[in-house]
Formats: sequence, C-alpha cells, structure tokens
Amino acid sequence: MEKQLFTKITVIGIGLIGSSLLHAIRANGLAAQTAAFDLSSDVRAEAGMLGLADEIPETLDAAIHDADLIIVATPVGAASKVLAALNDTAKQGAMITDVGSVKESVLKAGDVLRDDLLFVPAHPVAGTEHSGPSAGFSSLFKDRYFIITPDDQCADELYLAAVDKLKLLWQGMGAMVAIMDAKHHDVALAVTSHLPHLLAFTLVRAAADVQEVSQSEVVKYAAGGFRDFSRIAASDPIMWRDVFLHNKDAVLEVLGRFSEELMMMQRAIRWGDAETIEKTILQARTIRKEIIEAGQETDLPNFGRDAVTDKTDPSTGDKV
Amino acid sequence: MEKQLFTKITVIGIGLIGSSLLHAIRANGLAAQTAAFDLSSDVRAEAGMLGLADEIPETLDAAIHDADLIIVATPVGAASKVLAALNDTAKQGAMITDVGSVKESVLKAGDVLRDDLLFVPAHPVAGTEHSGPSAGFSSLFKDRYFIITPDDQCADELYLAAVDKLKLLWQGMGAMVAIMDAKHHDVALAVTSHLPHLLAFTLVRAAADVQEVSQSEVVKYAAGGFRDFSRIAASDPIMWRDVFLHNKDAVLEVLGRFSEELMMMQRAIRWGDAETIEKTILQARTIRKEIIEAGQETDLPNFGRDAVTDKTDPSTGDKV
Repeated sequence: MEKQLFTKITVIGIGLIGSSLLHAIRANGLAAQTAAFDLSSDVRAEAGMLGLADEIPETLDAAIHDADLIIVATPVGAASKVLAALNDTAKQGAMITDVGSVKESVLKAGDVLRDDLLFVPAHPVAGTEHSGPSAGFSSLFKDRYFIITPDDQCADELYLAAVDKLKLLWQGMGAMVAIMDAKHHDVALAVTSHLPHLLAFTLVRAAADVQEVSQSEVVKYAAGGFRDFSRIAASDPIMWRDVFLHNKDAVLEVLGRFSEELMMMQRAIRWGDAETIEKTILQARTIRKEIIEAGQETDLPNFGRDAVTDKTDPSTGDKV
Repeated sequence: MEKQLFTKITVIGIGLIGSSLLHAIRANGLAAQTAAFDLSSDVRAEAGMLGLADEIPETLDAAIHDADLIIVATPVGAASKVLAALNDTAKQGAMITDVGSVKESVLKAGDVLRDDLLFVPAHPVAGTEHSGPSAGFSSLFKDRYFIITPDDQCADELYLAAVDKLKLLWQGMGAMVAIMDAKHHDVALAVTSHLPHLLAFTLVRAAADVQEVSQSEVVKYAAGGFRDFSRIAASDPIMWRDVFLHNKDAVLEVLGRFSEELMMMQRAIRWGDAETIEKTILQARTIRKEIIEAGQETDLPNFGRDAVTDKTDPSTGDKV
C-alpha cells in the first residue's frame, strides 16, 4: 500500500543514511518526486550512476526548489551551515528535518531558519559500519526506532501537523517512532550509541599500541571478542568526530559513570574479588535477552555471522 | 577423508566448547571412541539425551579409563583440581590437553600430573555467547585459530610427538594452529579477548545505572551500537570470572594501556580537539579490513545479522 505523503522530498548529504532514505522513500512510494544533493561532486556523480534520485542537480538551491520536505542527512557538524543555506530558496511553509545522532545542538541550530519553515529534528537509530552513497538500502530503518525531538516551544497546529506527517513518513519506511525531548535523546543515545562507539574506537586504537602483541596477532585472534568491537570502529570518522564534539556534555557524563564501574572491576580483579566480578557479569547477561525479545537483535549465536561465512558443514550436515 | 588419530578421547566438562569438540571429533572421524564427563548430573543427563558421546559415565575415573587423549574443557578455575584427579586412573603415557582461555596458570597446574602423562595446553580462539551442552556444533573451530602452548621445559621426542599429534587433531577439525609461549598467549588474548569482554560486561552493567535513561530505552535504542557489546556480555559468568582471576597481570596491564587512551579521548572531547578524535577513529578503522581479509570476520554490514532477521524487503526486492 503506497502512501504518497509529499510532492517532492529533497535529501541533502548522500551517505549511508541519505541513500537509504532515498531507497526507502521510493520503495514505499512516499513521495511523487525525489531530489538529492551532496557538496562532493564525486558523491553526486556516484549517486547519479546509482540512480538514487529523480534529480541530483549541481546546486543546493536547485535541489530544494519546490520541495515540501527537506531532509538534512549530513554529519552533525555541517547541519547548522546547511540549515542557514536553506532560507533563500526553500518553499514557503516547507518542512525540514534531519537525521543527526545529536539533537539538542541541531534543534538550536534550527533557530536560523525562516519563521515559516517547519523544523522537526529526528534521528533514526539504525545504521551499518559502511558509508557512502552505495552503502544504502531500503530496509535499513525497518523495525528500528526513529526518534523525533520536536521543538517544545512550538505548539501551534501547523507545527503539530508537521510532526504527525513526519511520523507517518518514518512509519511508512517500516520504522517505529518515539517522540522525546532533545536533551533526553542526547543522554539516552550517549549510553546506547556514543559511548559504545567511543570504547570501540579507543580499544581498537589501543590494541595497536601494545608492543608485545603484533598487529597480525590482533587480527588472527580477533574471534576472541575483538572483532565485535571492530565493526562499529569502522564507522565514518567525520560523522563520529562530530557526534563527540556536539554531544560533549552527555558523552563525558556517561563516560564518567562507565569509568567508575571500570575502576571497580579493575580493583576486583587486582584483589581477586570473585564475587564482585561474577555479580557484574551476571547482571550484564540478562539485558541481551531483552534486546532480542524487543526485535532489535538476532538470537543466532555470533550474530548469525558464521551461518553466513560457513554456511554448511559438508561432513555432517550439523547446524553451523 | 577421515583421520582416526586416537583410540579413545575423553572430554571433561560438557559446555559450549566440550560439546563442540565432541561434535567435531565425530564429524571428522578423529577417534574410534568418545567419552565425556561433567560434574553436574543434569549436564551429563542432557549430554546423554543429545547423544554427544559414546559413553557418559557417572565418574571421572570411568570416563578417562583407557583414554589415550583427555581434553579438560572446564572453566580455568577448575583445571588444577581436574588435572590432579587424573593421576589415579589415566592410562600410562596418555596425552592431556585443555582448552582454557588462560595458559600460564594452566601450564603451571600441570606440574601435579604424573611424569608419564604428556600435558600439552591449548586454546581454541572460537566461541559463541551461548553456553551448555546444547550450544555446541561441529564447525565452531573451522577456520579459527587453535593456539598450542607447549611446556618449553620438555624437549624429549615423546613430548614433541604429542605436540604434533595434537596439531593434527585441531587441524582435523578445520582449525589453524599457532604455537607460542604461554606467557605471550596470555598477553595477546588479554588484548583480543579478555579486555573486550571486560569492557562489554562493564558497559552493559554501567548502562543499567544511568538513572536518566530507563532500561527499556537502552533496549529500544540498542541498535545504535550497544547491542554489539551485549553479545559477548552474555557469555558464561563462571568461565569469565575465572579468566579475569587467572590472567590478572596481563589483563591489568592491557587495561592500563586502554585507560590511558580513553583518558586521552576524554580530554580531546572536553577540549574540542577535533584532530585527535578524528585521527584515533581513522586509525581504528583500518584494522577491520585486515580481520575480514584474514577470514576471521564476515564482510556483510552489521555482521549480516539483518540479512538473517529481515531476509527480504517484499516491496522492492532490494538487497537487505
């Protein structure tokens, strides 16, 4: 069932999320027409070859011309500059949204927009470690959460209608929608996304510096757990640099809490406190079951990655 | 091609690794006969129902009777007790090995063994987050590394022949074999396995303690990165408690290096040092490619887990 919600949607920034949005908008018939723009001419050319949008013009102004929805899908650090650039050409009363991983700073950046433009920040909690226009696919947002963080200073009917319409758009891509305060979003995501990425980048970087262990050993024995961290450590550097810089307060706060726990574990290991170690592990263990039950994770061992790489055991037909 | 290397192999401890060994020994015809033992009568009963071994007797002595290879697959903390219990009944000249994640302490524990018994410690760098006798499968060790850490005090022909035979056994299961010093193993694995697990347990535990964020939010937004950590955080508590206690020195050492890097990143975020953050992320990014090229990881985005949970996008047939 197609629900054409918009006449023309323009996506600015054609990376993993931008290209996935273009796929998903088309696959679900959510707009009559799509346009896309990226600052990089290489990216525009690649997106053109992939046929990601009906038009991929050479200027931002041409791309957003007559669009009734503009989605900013750049790294968070570029958002305020892009938003400021929309004022000249954006259609009267157009809706603007974004997909950044940090929401309070983006919401504030929206102050530069013309009064008639309806800015509703959002964030899809979805992604892969791949980046660029060829990384996108239409089902990226399926069964994932899209968090909308509306401006709570705006309570007029027009704005509330825009929030509702955006909700329908994300739901039309198969996503579940949550609405929350931008500040709360930034703390929640610091816990579930920003701190995990910070630890992954740091661990992988630190492993290279342990002189007794060669990089080839780290690679060979990665199946001991390290490879799980290497996935998110392969994520886009500019995007993540911007996340840490723009969500500084929340990241430092949850990092502080984490460091206290880590210190406690360090002490327990040093003093042979078996009880504390075991208790921590047991508490950690329960939450995965809930994540699987909530449909946010596969229940196959090793993420099912072995089923993909090993497929079958020819000698036995045993489960693999 | 079947290569029957042993007349009778006995596996002690029927968890994920023990049961996988039993599957792999049979699937690859590596022994004429298999036996298994576990201290828990429930586990023995379950293993019996699953038909994991030719015999699963009620005593250790009966299980190891006439075995020419005994594999200790208990948590590391139980290894010294199990090794001591082998002396009374083990066949003259039998080979003994283990599969523990810590090697120096296990090698030392082997001192209690009778002089005629050939003890060759080993460690398969493979596993899943599941545990128990039903978690095992025959291809767990395929394309993974088996590290052998022989006693470098033993250089006689009989001992070296035992090392070679063990190498053939693991290779017969599809594994690759590396031989190294026990102390070096413990540092290398502290980096690639023990520290990642420690961080995962600690992060998942710490997330429960951030009061502003509810557990249901942690679950809902886990796809932002947290769920990757939750996998190894679901691993067996007793096994991992023992790893941290028995590899204390190496774990504390690499944890110290990690903490320094984390402090550097914390400082970079606090002071808005974009360059340091970006450099760290870029350095981390490269290693994943090497892990994939070494065949230790799938190259599918998100570990291929979405391909498993989402399978197809009915509306488009797009790649998912």
